[in-house]
Amino acid sequence: MGSPVTHWSVQTSKPVQYEIRVCENVFDPDNPTVLEDAAGTAGPRRFVVTDRVVDSLYGERIRAYFEHNGVEHQVLVLDDGEEHKSVEAVLRVSEALDAFGVDRRREPVVAVGGGVLMDIVGFAASLYRRSTPFIRIPTTLIGLVDAGVGAKTGVNHNGHKNRLGTYFPADRTLLDRTFLTTLDGRHISNGLAEILKIALIKDARLFDLLEQHGADLLENKLQSPAAGIGPTPADVPVDQRLASRGLHLDPATEVVERAIHGMLEELQPNLWEKVLERVVDYGHTFSPTIEMHALPALLHGEAVSVDMALTTVMAERRGLVSAYQRDRILGVMNLLGLPVWHPLCTPEVLQPALCDTVRHRDGKQRLPLPVGIGSAVFVNDVTESELASAARELALLTTGAAR
Amino acid sequence: MGSPVTHWSVQTSKPVQYEIRVCENVFDPDNPTVLEDAAGTAGPRRFVVTDRVVDSLYGERIRAYFEHNGVEHQVLVLDDGEEHKSVEAVLRVSEALDAFGVDRRREPVVAVGGGVLMDIVGFAASLYRRSTPFIRIPTTLIGLVDAGVGAKTGVNHNGHKNRLGTYFPADRTLLDRTFLTTLDGRHISNGLAEILKIALIKDARLFDLLEQHGADLLENKLQSPAAGIGPTPADVPVDQRLASRGLHLDPATEVVERAIHGMLEELQPNLWEKVLERVVDYGHTFSPTIEMHALPALLHGEAVSVDMALTTVMAERRGLVSAYQRDRILGVMNLLGLPVWHPLCTPEVLQPALCDTVRHRDGKQRLPLPVGIGSAVFVNDVTESELASAARELALLTTGAAR
Repeated sequence: MGSPVTHWSVQTSKPVQYEIRVCENVFDPDNPTVLEDAAGTAGPRRFVVTDRVVDSLYGERIRAYFEHNGVEHQVLVLDDGEEHKSVEAVLRVSEALDAFGVDRRREPVVAVGGGVLMDIVGFAASLYRRSTPFIRIPTTLIGLVDAGVGAKTGVNHNGHKNRLGTYFPADRTLLDRTFLTTLDGRHISNGLAEILKIALIKDARLFDLLEQHGADLLENKLQSPAAGIGPTPADVPVDQRLASRGLHLDPATEVVERAIHGMLEELQPNLWEKVLERVVDYGHTFSPTIEMHALPALLHGEAVSVDMALTTVMAERRGLVSAYQRDRILGVMNLLGLPVWHPLCTPEVLQPALCDTVRHRDGKQRLPLPVGIGSAVFVNDVTESELASAARELALLTTGAAR
Repeated sequence: MGSPVTHWSVQTSKPVQYEIRVCENVFDPDNPTVLEDAAGTAGPRRFVVTDRVVDSLYGERIRAYFEHNGVEHQVLVLDDGEEHKSVEAVLRVSEALDAFGVDRRREPVVAVGGGVLMDIVGFAASLYRRSTPFIRIPTTLIGLVDAGVGAKTGVNHNGHKNRLGTYFPADRTLLDRTFLTTLDGRHISNGLAEILKIALIKDARLFDLLEQHGADLLENKLQSPAAGIGPTPADVPVDQRLASRGLHLDPATEVVERAIHGMLEELQPNLWEKVLERVVDYGHTFSPTIEMHALPALLHGEAVSVDMALTTVMAERRGLVSAYQRDRILGVMNLLGLPVWHPLCTPEVLQPALCDTVRHRDGKQRLPLPVGIGSAVFVNDVTESELASAARELALLTTGAAR
């Protein structure tokens, strides 16, 4: 090919570290956790972003917390709901940061809210001056076990779910289950869908817990019984505690910890999704399109549940799960208050949804299907007719049972 | 502090690798370089983004290139100019990508244009599905030696230069100096400003080359003389070649290679700007504000030149450079067709500019000042009155000389 070329090759690597910490009553005026920065010292100013619902429930308490601690602060309140997860919301945060003025590295933005809010604020923080640290305080169950655990940020755009986004984990996520007491049942169910996902693809024990205690968990909003809401004392490290199958743990605590632990086991080695065969993508093949089409009728976890019900039926038809296991799975969805079918489960919606997911997975379906309960396999050969038949069967199954 | 807390710590690191390659006539129909993907195989489809000016000069050739090679393609043409470096442009790219449909990993977006265009496309690519690979083909000198070399993407927002952006280097940048033949003198000067920056803070030899050959470089648009425009045969690796002070290299090639090499030496160990004391920030303390205020009157390199002239005067007043060196520096700016003063050099503009930069550098000025020619130091103690005096002195100096 002629003379040698002049070139430079740049090789480096970016270290990433973040922490997820369980704590109680983070906005108790005497609890210093929110004000610790990465180095453990208190910072002088905090910019806080929350949504209308959280503001109406906790806004006064949040402001009082910062006032009590003599911290200059500003609270920006965004509209809540998936339909406001937009570029416009990101720009609002950015412009408010300009007006407040934050130093580039040492004044983390504080996001208090559900998955949507955390995704928006994380996205804005990642872009603002090409990265400004942030802290997540999830107030919903789905935020606690899913959006607050990983590294993804993003917004919907041009009719597509999370079309624009970044990988940018919060320096710290503070998990405070006391927020769940003000959540309605539907939003508890919404979070339970992502917990069920982890159970189905990698944790049979978690599935058993959901099957056995699902009704109670929903009823009690995942609060621990008796002395003190929140985690039980944890003298034993998390992984040992979970390996001992919940010894010393109440069901709510064990369910939440197993879900987070399972999620992190999958994310840590693949934080930037270099490997596109991800078991945690289970329930996320058809659901992005279904969710966007149904907006705002379906919550994220509800769309995921419908996707999981459909793919459970596909798995049964392929002999990967038994009819008994399939019925147990659909039964647990019912128990957890989750939908197992939706009118958008038609070939006209499902086939284009699969096509977009194939682009997202670089040209292959890489579709996770459950194998029994607690394991998964990836397939690349789903046909239009298989999809249509599974959708039909799901509709029939749920006419008698769930619908 | 009570019972031990439950927490998870996630630790990982993201490997990053990218290549900058010198080549000639990239859109020669028989040159396969543009179509090689990272793995060296040709891809089936390419989405290309360029700007109006480049399209009018090279659009036909670009389309003919892909047609000749049987590659399905689409060319999106954006408005050119710093004033169009906006979120809106990023969304246009994103929506066009939706319409064209690119597979997530193996169909890199091709950016053909100057620094503004590459920053926009890189930003869009980094956000689209949370990262889509891209290739840069700079067509301007500033693109070749600056925007095309590093990892930064971004757009202006809310009146602030590059307020939103990411660190996301192109997989490959192809440096083809033949594009410079259609550039006007002012845009050659614009790129020479960033080359002069590297000279001043770390490469005395590069400064000598600019002083000695600046007029020719400008006149000949950095084309190499005689046999073949572009790089001389490079049997000797880049670093050895540059260490031998240009042995076998014509001045244009040596100037470009020294500038790129110096830039990469600074970037590679600090790609995400963890260290905020960056010598390559020289000329970029006051210029972002000056450039945005003057928009569209000043090109980026012109604003950087004004900043460097001002800070050279500050350095002389502090005894860091001699009056003789200061006059050589201002003289080279003149020689390269660069401004050394601007009416916006007033305390009313400069002081707020410094304040914003201090936020950007996490609470400290971290202002690089030249030490002699080819070295730099960081200072944190610039006062309002020092700034005003330096601006006044610069105005006086340039009334007689440069203005």
